[in-house]
Amino acid sequence: MRTKSFNSVLSKYKAVFLDSYGVIKNHAGLIPDVQKAINHIRLTGMPLRVLTNDASRSPLLLAENFDKLGLRGIKPSEIITSGMMAKEYLVNKGKKGKVAYLGTNNSADYIRDADLEPISISKVNEANMHEISAVVFLDDEGYDWNKDLNTTVNLLRKYQIPAIVANSDVIYPVSKNNVAIATGGVAGLVENILGRDFIHYGKPDSQMFMYGFEQLNKIRKFNRKDILMVGDTLHTDILGGNKFGISTVLVLTGNTSAEEAQIKIKATGVIPDYICKSIVE
Amino acid sequence: MRTKSFNSVLSKYKAVFLDSYGVIKNHAGLIPDVQKAINHIRLTGMPLRVLTNDASRSPLLLAENFDKLGLRGIKPSEIITSGMMAKEYLVNKGKKGKVAYLGTNNSADYIRDADLEPISISKVNEANMHEISAVVFLDDEGYDWNKDLNTTVNLLRKYQIPAIVANSDVIYPVSKNNVAIATGGVAGLVENILGRDFIHYGKPDSQMFMYGFEQLNKIRKFNRKDILMVGDTLHTDILGGNKFGISTVLVLTGNTSAEEAQIKIKATGVIPDYICKSIVE
Amino acid sequence: MRTKSFNSVLSKYKAVFLDSYGVIKNHAGLIPDVQKAINHIRLTGMPLRVLTNDASRSPLLLAENFDKLGLRGIKPSEIITSGMMAKEYLVNKGKKGKVAYLGTNNSADYIRDADLEPISISKVNEANMHEISAVVFLDDEGYDWNKDLNTTVNLLRKYQIPAIVANSDVIYPVSKNNVAIATGGVAGLVENILGRDFIHYGKPDSQMFMYGFEQLNKIRKFNRKDILMVGDTLHTDILGGNKFGISTVLVLTGNTSAEEAQIKIKATGVIPDYICKSIVE
Amino acid sequence: MRTKSFNSVLSKYKAVFLDSYGVIKNHAGLIPDVQKAINHIRLTGMPLRVLTNDASRSPLLLAENFDKLGLRGIKPSEIITSGMMAKEYLVNKGKKGKVAYLGTNNSADYIRDADLEPISISKVNEANMHEISAVVFLDDEGYDWNKDLNTTVNLLRKYQIPAIVANSDVIYPVSKNNVAIATGGVAGLVENILGRDFIHYGKPDSQMFMYGFEQLNKIRKFNRKDILMVGDTLHTDILGGNKFGISTVLVLTGNTSAEEAQIKIKATGVIPDYICKSIVE
Repeated sequence: MRTKSFNSVLSKYKAVFLDSYGVIKNHAGLIPDVQKAINHIRLTGMPLRVLTNDASRSPLLLAENFDKLGLRGIKPSEIITSGMMAKEYLVNKGKKGKVAYLGTNNSADYIRDADLEPISISKVNEANMHEISAVVFLDDEGYDWNKDLNTTVNLLRKYQIPAIVANSDVIYPVSKNNVAIATGGVAGLVENILGRDFIHYGKPDSQMFMYGFEQLNKIRKFNRKDILMVGDTLHTDILGGNKFGISTVLVLTGNTSAEEAQIKIKATGVIPDYICKSIVE
Repeated sequence: MRTKSFNSVLSKYKAVFLDSYGVIKNHAGLIPDVQKAINHIRLTGMPLRVLTNDASRSPLLLAENFDKLGLRGIKPSEIITSGMMAKEYLVNKGKKGKVAYLGTNNSADYIRDADLEPISISKVNEANMHEISAVVFLDDEGYDWNKDLNTTVNLLRKYQIPAIVANSDVIYPVSKNNVAIATGGVAGLVENILGRDFIHYGKPDSQMFMYGFEQLNKIRKFNRKDILMVGDTLHTDILGGNKFGISTVLVLTGNTSAEEAQIKIKATGVIPDYICKSIVE
Repeated sequence: MRTKSFNSVLSKYKAVFLDSYGVIKNHAGLIPDVQKAINHIRLTGMPLRVLTNDASRSPLLLAENFDKLGLRGIKPSEIITSGMMAKEYLVNKGKKGKVAYLGTNNSADYIRDADLEPISISKVNEANMHEISAVVFLDDEGYDWNKDLNTTVNLLRKYQIPAIVANSDVIYPVSKNNVAIATGGVAGLVENILGRDFIHYGKPDSQMFMYGFEQLNKIRKFNRKDILMVGDTLHTDILGGNKFGISTVLVLTGNTSAEEAQIKIKATGVIPDYICKSIVE
Repeated sequence: MRTKSFNSVLSKYKAVFLDSYGVIKNHAGLIPDVQKAINHIRLTGMPLRVLTNDASRSPLLLAENFDKLGLRGIKPSEIITSGMMAKEYLVNKGKKGKVAYLGTNNSADYIRDADLEPISISKVNEANMHEISAVVFLDDEGYDWNKDLNTTVNLLRKYQIPAIVANSDVIYPVSKNNVAIATGGVAGLVENILGRDFIHYGKPDSQMFMYGFEQLNKIRKFNRKDILMVGDTLHTDILGGNKFGISTVLVLTGNTSAEEAQIKIKATGVIPDYICKSIVE
């Protein structure tokens, strides 16, 4: 597959979904000249949504973070997070009682936004376990993995309550050469111990794409063929976009380097419609 | 969890999704008195959709089959199959060329309906392999598992083309005591051999629920809290319904017997909102 | 399968392998009257070996612990641990350099016994990473899961060095109703993140059985048909014993209760030759 | 890792284990000049054993096959197959009754050699199911995958009998560019359907290495450090050899090509002690 210019690809579509990490920014800050790319999209007038596997903070805080990094003009209402899908679950299916969460206090905003009461897993004990109505994995920080994952295992063995994984990613880059275990990796440990499949949100699952699609259709009528998904990760962005029936472009500014793109595509069988160096070029 | 009367549960909702196998019919034919249950739903005036993990034949043929069994009044347009999701994929993402399928000639209707040319995997060989643009797993019958699964493995090793699993179920009952390996089981063998995840459709995936939800909203405005999903299988009907954010009821006329319901719920952590003996009682 | 008297079963064999946890002791201390059972085995004159998935401390410390609990007469030389298998690996395949370990200082005895230099994973950093020649998972305690598992992931991504799991158990009981995640569970998280299979020791793997079998044959000639394996866990003690070709007895004093024995045997397809209430009865 | 001359590596050891497929022969026949390599080993006087994941025929027939291909001097007693491990299981743990097998008539020799009565899975039906005392997966040929795998699934759901996988390989090459699904792949389908782990024999499992080690020690005393395992496959030959504590050499005449050796070693974390082009060079 030959690399194409992003703008030439974009010109065939009427709306665009962008992954955040690896497409707009990375561990070192903004992708160079990404403001130019966003400005170009704005000039076309096509709607844009950022689809990010992130439940560590609200769209509001994520938008503020773009701003702090120096990227102008991404509105909170344009950001769709996997945490929002978990919030939707809690709104639709949430029971009374406290919702235990694994994450930082910022991440617990998703529970507060569902009008439920969050309690950090580090505060859960034998005495208050019976009050918990659900467990949500929101972030890899904010708790003690050893102590609190054991609490989670015992809570879920004793009480029939749902467990929700608000971000299925298993790793994330923290520097050029280092990664860290992400929320989905932590949740996977507990799932393996219990022999269960929790309720997972985040790409490649269809739910975030659907949410974005519904938002676009409130603006005006869009078909799936009108939409381009841009991502740096084959098994989330590209697999999810393909499955949802929209076009997909793999960019080489994140998880998938130019050298390994063809090898990874062949090995995984996950095939993007296009490959572009970045959303800038 | 106490067993409730189905009609008392139904009365709290404005629309209903029914699984087919294990809810409306089973290996022996129709569930006793199921016509009464369907008639009751009709009397309430609420819209009904049948959501079935089936890609072996079209909604038209499935509706005819209900009729032959003696159940009146299920329209083809009320039946949503996982095969339809595969068809949608082919419509949105299908490339020119032939689509190889694993299934019977009836199942290939889903490819024809996408205006693409089906070719049975049993007809694929070294000479025509290069013409194939996608592989679709539609049914467990209609091909030779030994010879044709080996063809499938080699086709997907050599060509970068997508593989779609139009029914993720791994077994289905064929008599009171016997089961058969289903399409998802067969596809799983090929996925394990290749070390890949194919594109899967069918419950518990959100796509079918979303499709049904969009159909309902063309009639009039429905919220997720208005909808009840009825199924006999925890890890497809109930997990999928819960994840999509609608209410769920487990019935005991199929895969989950009265004796094992509580044990399975505890073991899997998949928790229905209600348990009912059947949609009749 | 009917429950039998342990002594009547034992009388058919010439040597016995006992699991420790769930057979000789449990979270509350010694199994009641277990001294009587050990005394009976001693009276028969048949050799006994304790086969335990444990790499947290040496056979010497484990024997002292039996003594502290009040059980007399188990010699260190009669205890075979999965940690000893990891030590054998290091003796046979160990390279110069430091061996990073996840565990307590006690567990690092297995590395010292192989004449290699242990370094706690908590002391590994960018500056000394290049000195590490292997990683060994020995215990679930003695390090910070969050920080140090991330170190482990990055170490194994950057350097081509072997990773050894000296205890494959995923959970262990800590009280009547609570469990804790064990070494094998922690290692499994890292394996999933990296997409690798580490080198695992411990039942059901054949290596410990072979080690015990070789020890017996240094006393006098034994055939496999002469040996009885006693355990409380189907997928370690019984599966491993069956695979090694020796007879197996499931006791109901640990992981498998009387109520669930038949259900678990049916579900797993792991079938002991006998079931006994305990080694006392 | 630099490629070394095989003979220079061999000169450091006192005994050698060779994989068959990919080391001595491949789909096209013998590896060029392999007779020369075997002659060289014979000249050193060191004992040689062929360790092969094969249960399709007896060591006698495999030795005859080497002879037919033109390779002289491999004795049946020097060939250790995974089928022999399954036979050992049946000898040690076999119950009265018929043993159902998936494979050709040749493969059933392993059951006959255990003095048990084989019955092809294709002959098993509702009427004689109760007579079956075990199921053995021996080969990928000799039965109808669709019909007979469904029989196997139902047999194992209804009766508590052990299932043994006599060859865990999931694929094997049938030509330069084509592979076929092997016994372990077929068994894996049934294991996934049933949610069980069968009893598996064959590399990387320790049992075959142990069997070869015991044979060598009947000749004279060998330590593990004296033995070299030669194989073309990382996750069977090399992982198994490493785990058993013997030295390992990867050759590039089979599953692992020169181009991909380093990439695969890095990806899997399975690290051979040496890499050689072939056993000839």
